Amino acid sequence: MIHIAILGFGVVGGGITEVLEQNKTALQRMVHDEIHVKYILDRLEFPDSPYADRVVHDMSVIANDPQVSIVCETMGGVGAAFDFTMQAIQSGKSVVTSNKELVAKRGVEILEAAKEMGVSYLCEASVGGGIPQIRGMRTSLAGDTITAIDGIMNGTTNYILTRMRKDGATFEAALAEAQTLGYAEADPSADVDGLDAQRKIMILTAIATNMLADEKDVYTETMTKVTPADMDAAARWGGTVKLLGSARISGEHASLYVCPVFVPGTSPLANIDDVYNGIRFVSPVTADVMYYGRGAGRLPTAGAVVADVAAAASGLADRELPMEWEAAPAGYVLPFSENVFSYYVRVKTDTVREMLERASLVFGEIQALPGSPVGYAEFITPPTVEAEAARAFAGNTFAGLESRIRIMAT
Amino acid sequence: MIHIAILGFGVVGGGITEVLEQNKTALQRMVHDEIHVKYILDRLEFPDSPYADRVVHDMSVIANDPQVSIVCETMGGVGAAFDFTMQAIQSGKSVVTSNKELVAKRGVEILEAAKEMGVSYLCEASVGGGIPQIRGMRTSLAGDTITAIDGIMNGTTNYILTRMRKDGATFEAALAEAQTLGYAEADPSADVDGLDAQRKIMILTAIATNMLADEKDVYTETMTKVTPADMDAAARWGGTVKLLGSARISGEHASLYVCPVFVPGTSPLANIDDVYNGIRFVSPVTADVMYYGRGAGRLPTAGAVVADVAAAASGLADRELPMEWEAAPAGYVLPFSENVFSYYVRVKTDTVREMLERASLVFGEIQALPGSPVGYAEFITPPTVEAEAARAFAGNTFAGLESRIRIMAT
Repeated sequence: MIHIAILGFGVVGGGITEVLEQNKTALQRMVHDEIHVKYILDRLEFPDSPYADRVVHDMSVIANDPQVSIVCETMGGVGAAFDFTMQAIQSGKSVVTSNKELVAKRGVEILEAAKEMGVSYLCEASVGGGIPQIRGMRTSLAGDTITAIDGIMNGTTNYILTRMRKDGATFEAALAEAQTLGYAEADPSADVDGLDAQRKIMILTAIATNMLADEKDVYTETMTKVTPADMDAAARWGGTVKLLGSARISGEHASLYVCPVFVPGTSPLANIDDVYNGIRFVSPVTADVMYYGRGAGRLPTAGAVVADVAAAASGLADRELPMEWEAAPAGYVLPFSENVFSYYVRVKTDTVREMLERASLVFGEIQALPGSPVGYAEFITPPTVEAEAARAFAGNTFAGLESRIRIMAT
Repeated sequence: MIHIAILGFGVVGGGITEVLEQNKTALQRMVHDEIHVKYILDRLEFPDSPYADRVVHDMSVIANDPQVSIVCETMGGVGAAFDFTMQAIQSGKSVVTSNKELVAKRGVEILEAAKEMGVSYLCEASVGGGIPQIRGMRTSLAGDTITAIDGIMNGTTNYILTRMRKDGATFEAALAEAQTLGYAEADPSADVDGLDAQRKIMILTAIATNMLADEKDVYTETMTKVTPADMDAAARWGGTVKLLGSARISGEHASLYVCPVFVPGTSPLANIDDVYNGIRFVSPVTADVMYYGRGAGRLPTAGAVVADVAAAASGLADRELPMEWEAAPAGYVLPFSENVFSYYVRVKTDTVREMLERASLVFGEIQALPGSPVGYAEFITPPTVEAEAARAFAGNTFAGLESRIRIMAT
């Protein structure tokens, strides 16, 4: 019997007990043993739950019970969740987590403690709900060298952008709809401002490189400024607008960023809609692989936690590519200003031809977008160093600048 | 040092040595040891290869060398490949294969022998080139219950269908182009008649259920009869035509089939084009997950072989969901005639309205397709048991029947 404890009996924590029951037989085939929930740590009591008798309020009960070998942390946040995680690890227990904020902010020291104690710290559920991309990176792609990651990593914003594209909705209207449906929080800022995606791209890049970036080095741009006019322009250009978390990785350096971009219609990422996520890896051998699925939700996320529990219980986790993260040293993450992007640009102007000529002088060979609304110049710039583009947009040259959105880098 | 042997120094076999060199560092991080190619078995010599001194012509040299722990079989076919595989396993070596025909036809006895000897028989490279769906099923999805599989599993036919859709090409013209580009063989029948996809859906279903179907129970329909008129109709319907390998799995039964189907444009499978593959799994917990990538090609396929070598060498393979296949007993695979599909139907007729009325009498509430060419009745049937649909199409009721293509089942 494998005894586990669940920290936090909320949406995901409750889902774990459900998945364990529902898939008992399949799990037993993999683990060759029964998985038993011995404790549930929560501030509340759950008198009506069949698990009422497992509820405890003191972490040391769990830490001090040598029977417990695996702890699932689904509390969220970086305060108590960090303390309890360290307490569990220092008591010789493996920890499985869905807490992306904690992994992104304190992953280095938690993994170091886990290595010292010879236990695992597993975080599949922290990125992309039920989509098994972390296990994929640590098993199937482990013998390859990942050079690029691009992903729709946040279901809330993808739902909003899908509604904007399909229904011509404004950001505000689409957000309100997402909130009504329960896809967006009352305070949606972590999603729409890109923080959620930022943490995820930090985690995936760390899996690929063992270097965990500092969040201040990950350029992160809100998607709240995307308008129906931008969607319309993207369609005329032959694509759509998506919020991507991206990384470009070479031997010595990486560049990480989160921002809304024009994605060409030929990219498999362009067709990932609603609350679905899709994460694409480029590498010299495997070429490119994309994982697609439900990026969030009670059962998919709980399922990812349970898959990690099974991996810890079966010993699989010890045979995967080891996670031995370091804090990325100064200079490892390149300044965002050194990246090169083409831009979509829209300028309100009475003199469209002159504006396009001016743009050519600044950027070189631009490409005017066909079908622009009257009174607007719209163009795509050639690849331009970010710092130069920022300078061009900051000055008075493009007075009437209404929008500039990067084109997804190849 | 982990000593391995490669059987067959062709496209994939040669790729293995390349991948091992290219990803030496990454592999060492996972395996904690160096992987060394000790032997290459081939009928030919390769005097100009840096591996010339490893070439042998006698399998017993490899089988009798206790240093060799892993053998990569990339010969193809079921004759010598089967004998050498069994010889390697009976000598206590794990075998990694890219040979889908062998896995689909003799997988049960090979896996049984491997179990007896306590070694692994791994086949990631036999399905979907570099796409890690088999490892995904045996690790991340292992604790879930897969109920449906739908996949674009053959790059050659997907390239042909993509050209037909985008360029309005006929099957013959698109095939000729694929042959020129090296995407299709001179004799393309294994691809276009669905045999390749048949083997792959047999393998994936066996991974999910541990039941290996007999190929005669897997309904397999050629895609050579798909015409530009069908593509045009699919577009008007709101989708496209794809060749899918599919399985529907319940506790006691499974249904497996390969045929061209109408895929709705909202499905992520509709947008997988050119030589790419995409394979989607449905399960109650993870909901749905799709793996996308290059389904074939020298390096992606060799990369999948090397990933399996690393899994065998690191001990990962022993911790995955075990593959203990049985030959599916009589009645496990349901007769294809019991499946239920909606159909797209096109009938050449001078009396369109009467033909549609007749169709309503036969099928019930049909849906006429808008924009049909003059002189044709086109309609979508309601869900109909396959046996009844076959009977309706066989008689004289639909004289002038030009095409009937199933709609992808949900």
